Amino acid sequence: MSASTIDLAVIPGDGIGPEVTAEALKVLEKAAAAEGLVLQQTHYVLGAQHWLETGETLPEDTLADLRTRDVILFGAIGAAPGDTRIPSGLIERELLLKLRFSLDHFVNLRPSRLYSGVGSPLADPGEIDFIVVREGTEGPYVGNGGVLRAGTPHEVATEVSLNTAHGVERVVRDAFRRASERPRKKLTLVHKHNVLVFAGHLWKRTVEAVAQEFPEVTHDYLHIDAATIFMVTDPSRFDVIVTDNLFGDIITDLAAAVTGGIGLAASGNINMERTAPSMFEPVHGSAPDIAGQQKADPTAAILSAAMLLEHLGFAGAARKIETAVVADVESRDGGFRSTSAIGDAIAAAL
Amino acid sequence: MSASTIDLAVIPGDGIGPEVTAEALKVLEKAAAAEGLVLQQTHYVLGAQHWLETGETLPEDTLADLRTRDVILFGAIGAAPGDTRIPSGLIERELLLKLRFSLDHFVNLRPSRLYSGVGSPLADPGEIDFIVVREGTEGPYVGNGGVLRAGTPHEVATEVSLNTAHGVERVVRDAFRRASERPRKKLTLVHKHNVLVFAGHLWKRTVEAVAQEFPEVTHDYLHIDAATIFMVTDPSRFDVIVTDNLFGDIITDLAAAVTGGIGLAASGNINMERTAPSMFEPVHGSAPDIAGQQKADPTAAILSAAMLLEHLGFAGAARKIETAVVADVESRDGGFRSTSAIGDAIAAAL
Ligand SMILES: CC(C)[C@H](C(=O)O)[C@@H](O)C(=O)O
Ligand SMILES: CC(C)[C@H](C(=O)O)[C@@H](O)C(=O)O
Repeated sequence: MSASTIDLAVIPGDGIGPEVTAEALKVLEKAAAAEGLVLQQTHYVLGAQHWLETGETLPEDTLADLRTRDVILFGAIGAAPGDTRIPSGLIERELLLKLRFSLDHFVNLRPSRLYSGVGSPLADPGEIDFIVVREGTEGPYVGNGGVLRAGTPHEVATEVSLNTAHGVERVVRDAFRRASERPRKKLTLVHKHNVLVFAGHLWKRTVEAVAQEFPEVTHDYLHIDAATIFMVTDPSRFDVIVTDNLFGDIITDLAAAVTGGIGLAASGNINMERTAPSMFEPVHGSAPDIAGQQKADPTAAILSAAMLLEHLGFAGAARKIETAVVADVESRDGGFRSTSAIGDAIAAAL
Repeated sequence: MSASTIDLAVIPGDGIGPEVTAEALKVLEKAAAAEGLVLQQTHYVLGAQHWLETGETLPEDTLADLRTRDVILFGAIGAAPGDTRIPSGLIERELLLKLRFSLDHFVNLRPSRLYSGVGSPLADPGEIDFIVVREGTEGPYVGNGGVLRAGTPHEVATEVSLNTAHGVERVVRDAFRRASERPRKKLTLVHKHNVLVFAGHLWKRTVEAVAQEFPEVTHDYLHIDAATIFMVTDPSRFDVIVTDNLFGDIITDLAAAVTGGIGLAASGNINMERTAPSMFEPVHGSAPDIAGQQKADPTAAILSAAMLLEHLGFAGAARKIETAVVADVESRDGGFRSTSAIGDAIAAAL
């Protein structure tokens, strides 16, 4: 990245991915220009549709090329649920998870905030403003496991969750640092250490150890089952949640739901060691049922673009996008606006 | 079990366990007497407190003795969260999970119903009436895993989820049978098969296969993350959920929360092959902070006793308890009633 150019990789993907990504780029272009930044885009055609046409998920040379970029903007991937031509989960694993793992995106950052004017399914949501720091490169997501005697009455299938001190410590430290920079300075570890003893104790011990470096941060612990209860009865109690890959997947979807839906939930797959480009993507999927109809809400993609700018050091530009998004969201009256109308409005407000 | 005697094991446990169990027994006694049944009780002192005094969790001879009983009523176990004398999770694993695994409680049955008059944290909960059939004897709960280089920067901790065709098929068939007996006849498999491929595909294939035996039951599939979203945005969509041990743990706590809290959530740990006694317990924990103060709600324990009767074939008596509970719950006005006052009222209404 030269001082004035962002070398941006764009993976629009499937379904509504291209539509929401177009709006995110619209806003990103405008915000970048205001900072005197040039956005140099390289688009990569990847996803379920591409696999159907070519049999390719993420070729090694494409991955190598992606590695040379400053940062990646990701739309959404995945075929329609009923599409039996694609082995289930193939694109998710061989493209999305492969990117997260190969590029060492160990901080899967997912902020949750209930904007005023946005409806929550909760009767009395209170103020909700927390972030989830989800580990992104290990845990039950490693794809380690197997099947014995598949398809027989004696089949045994295993899944191995792999957790390392290296992997847990770096994400826990990142979460503490983020907590220390927030007004409430509170960290909650979510796990299930009373049952998953081996992994759970590694997480618990690591939190206790890293806590020593951040005496200003208070911390507590919740089992994942109890955490889901608090997410609907007292979401205000959360400030920073740190958790593993699978529990993070679950709790962030629930968090998105209580803060008005995954149309608003942004995320970053961040390599904090900056040994490879980070990747920013809305939490939502490709929603094939509404694809190409300008019905998708691009807000999550636009907020993901703001996180991208923040990661690159342009916190001011990120704040401006967020401010424009908040103003737009607060002014919504429930009437229909097309995907591009929302993008236009937010870009215009910058 | 002779025709007219129930040989009942009672494990009151810790914290509020003894208090809520006393009320469940009060109601159970009355319901049994009305059927001409004799309730023969054997109480077992087990739990965190017992471990502190004796170092015993579940001795083999106690387990052998429990095996001779018809059925087990379980209160709650566990020490206060801050009590560092007890290794975390020890009592849960060596007592509660050991019972579930040793007695082959493969159907962990957890009904969720929103009673009229009960407050839900959801603004617009709609009608909620579903059951979760949680697998209870395998999955990530098997305690299989380990630690390498513990406490060093090179620590690796693993957790192995074990899933067998035998284990999955019997619980899936049980769930389909329960679905076939319900008005809506709908089953939803909850898993994460796009990531946990090996276990996930075993579950998916098994559901497809067993579905052939139940053509009257419709079935669909949700990833666990999406299931948590629906649990707060459209819980009415659920009729019967079947899922693994860990996802079942998570989704049932969330379900309890949206239906008014774990003070009302009952459960059965059921050995449907009847090779060992089944065990009925409230979903809630031992709540040491309010123990001994008559503040605990015994409703979940009482509903668990109703499930116990149903399991033993006394469906009529079970329905009577449920009816009394529903009437009591609907008449609550938010004013304080002691644990025993609630038990008295429900027993009197039988
Ligand atoms: C698509 C899937 C593999 C992915 C995940 O489980 O991480 C998604 O649910 C998410 O949360 O980004
Ligand atoms: C106490 C704990 C081991 C248990 C579980 O995880 O199964 C509890 O949460 C439950 O749901 O009954």
